[in-house]
Amino acid sequence: MARRRRMKRSYAILGVGGVGGYYGAALARAGHPVHWLVRHDADHLRRDGLCVETRGETWRVPTPSVAASPDELPPVDVAIVAIKTTENHRLPEWLPRALQRPDTAVLMMQNGLGPEDDAARAAPGRPIFGGLCFLCSHKVAPGHIRHLDYGKVTFAAWSPDGSPAGTPSLLAAIAADFAAAGIETEVLPDLLAARWRKLVWNAPFSGLCVALRTDTRALVTNPATRRLAADLMAEIQTGAAAWGREIPDAFLDHMFELTDRMTPYMPSMQLDFEAGRPMEIEAIYERPVAAARQRGVAMSRVEMLGRLLRFLEAQPRVGGSAGKKSPT
Amino acid sequence: MARRRRMKRSYAILGVGGVGGYYGAALARAGHPVHWLVRHDADHLRRDGLCVETRGETWRVPTPSVAASPDELPPVDVAIVAIKTTENHRLPEWLPRALQRPDTAVLMMQNGLGPEDDAARAAPGRPIFGGLCFLCSHKVAPGHIRHLDYGKVTFAAWSPDGSPAGTPSLLAAIAADFAAAGIETEVLPDLLAARWRKLVWNAPFSGLCVALRTDTRALVTNPATRRLAADLMAEIQTGAAAWGREIPDAFLDHMFELTDRMTPYMPSMQLDFEAGRPMEIEAIYERPVAAARQRGVAMSRVEMLGRLLRFLEAQPRVGGSAGKKSPT
Repeated sequence: MARRRRMKRSYAILGVGGVGGYYGAALARAGHPVHWLVRHDADHLRRDGLCVETRGETWRVPTPSVAASPDELPPVDVAIVAIKTTENHRLPEWLPRALQRPDTAVLMMQNGLGPEDDAARAAPGRPIFGGLCFLCSHKVAPGHIRHLDYGKVTFAAWSPDGSPAGTPSLLAAIAADFAAAGIETEVLPDLLAARWRKLVWNAPFSGLCVALRTDTRALVTNPATRRLAADLMAEIQTGAAAWGREIPDAFLDHMFELTDRMTPYMPSMQLDFEAGRPMEIEAIYERPVAAARQRGVAMSRVEMLGRLLRFLEAQPRVGGSAGKKSPT
Repeated sequence: MARRRRMKRSYAILGVGGVGGYYGAALARAGHPVHWLVRHDADHLRRDGLCVETRGETWRVPTPSVAASPDELPPVDVAIVAIKTTENHRLPEWLPRALQRPDTAVLMMQNGLGPEDDAARAAPGRPIFGGLCFLCSHKVAPGHIRHLDYGKVTFAAWSPDGSPAGTPSLLAAIAADFAAAGIETEVLPDLLAARWRKLVWNAPFSGLCVALRTDTRALVTNPATRRLAADLMAEIQTGAAAWGREIPDAFLDHMFELTDRMTPYMPSMQLDFEAGRPMEIEAIYERPVAAARQRGVAMSRVEMLGRLLRFLEAQPRVGGSAGKKSPT
């Protein structure tokens, strides 16, 4: 135990995609013991290591510690969940086996509303935190991550009733680890507020890019979709307000300013769609709609966008309409 | 004048597409004098005539009376407007010149809300009627119409304040002309009710087919879009109710039943979209939304669908996203 006290905080990371690969490599470079749980790419990672291309440099983790099953993970201080929320049905099976020490904390680096509730159901009684990522990074091949831009993580602690949980010292320490690893960080006292705020950007732009097969630049420059994006943001604002989280109009304006200045983006939902993978429709659309409805607030446009995405997800990706006739 | 009394009612038809070509040929076959106003295809029609393929037979009008300008039209009893509503900005120029007799009536065979108001602004003081078409017919080449299915016309008289105008004898006579020409007809006393009812089908299915590049069959069999179509129909129902036109739930159910039984359709809006032509977004989406708002009713989903269509209409039709990055 004396030895462990001198060691840097250890991390297990579930998933080695754009999030788990990038942040894991950053922590490993900073000297933290990092162990990745990998479903498909374990052999590849063991053989060729992990490589992260990031803004002109390449980070290599030549011999990553890789587990192909949660039982193979060593005991760690923090387990980071960096799989897509569409895989969260695996958490009840994986998470208890990954958390071998009773004090291991869980950090949910996922999109949308409610991933921490998924974690709490799968691993009751653990300290659970959210890590909201704003980054452009994706896996281009097994063990090969391309990080393009941004990378800030907003940390906040989960509480069972959703009330602001302040800043537990462990969370502050984790945020400090990320900061020391070169990541921009922020710690907020109110996870639910942070999650609703993130939806202000994600709900309009992720879904509209997929539904309209376009990018953020086209959406904000076309007057019809710019107004629609504003309407979608305003609905998220009413949903947040129904849960006691006021999002000022200035925040919405700021999201537009950021998007106006951005290089045209293809959100990760669009990459998922184009690759034929499930999209995070539940986390980004259906859960917020259900949460707002629970407080008596209808978010019709957000709901509609979720339904359009559900339709698109269910279609064979190679297009072509079966239409045969033309009624006026 | 004695001679005219013995003649069958005469028609001028603005437009020779799926509507104007089909119904005009039917009236001509039944012995009515029919004169088409044609912008682009006049030479072609004069040289090769008009040909309508319809359910196993071919109707030919070998030497149609064709005008390339409204001034070339002879005086007629009824002027049928069978251009797309996207061309209605031409009515103030065309319609007064096409109505050379003071008692010539105008029959608007167009989609959406308000085409009769456009006609009334362009030609004040004329008898104005609506002819709501349910048919599958399109122009495959100049002077060549392919009629696939259906064809019923619902007739109703316009009134300046939108109140039910009953059945003027001229309207009943026009409907009888269509019926004698083999067309299924119906005469209703309330044009506004008829137009809102037609939107119950058009608003969800035309736009969703375009936005999702699909057909009616796929929309009604996918649970997400079936619910969305029902939500869109319910919004049209509230818009109609705001104008004092109750549409019973059973009518919505009936629209679903019809669509369930239909061969998969590609609505005419989709043909317009794929051909790079303007879509009837104003008539089918923006005007109903504005009308409902005028009575204090929001139709958010109908409005959203209209905005998605406005975006799609503004894009170059040859796809391809400019997206370059992948933020989570």
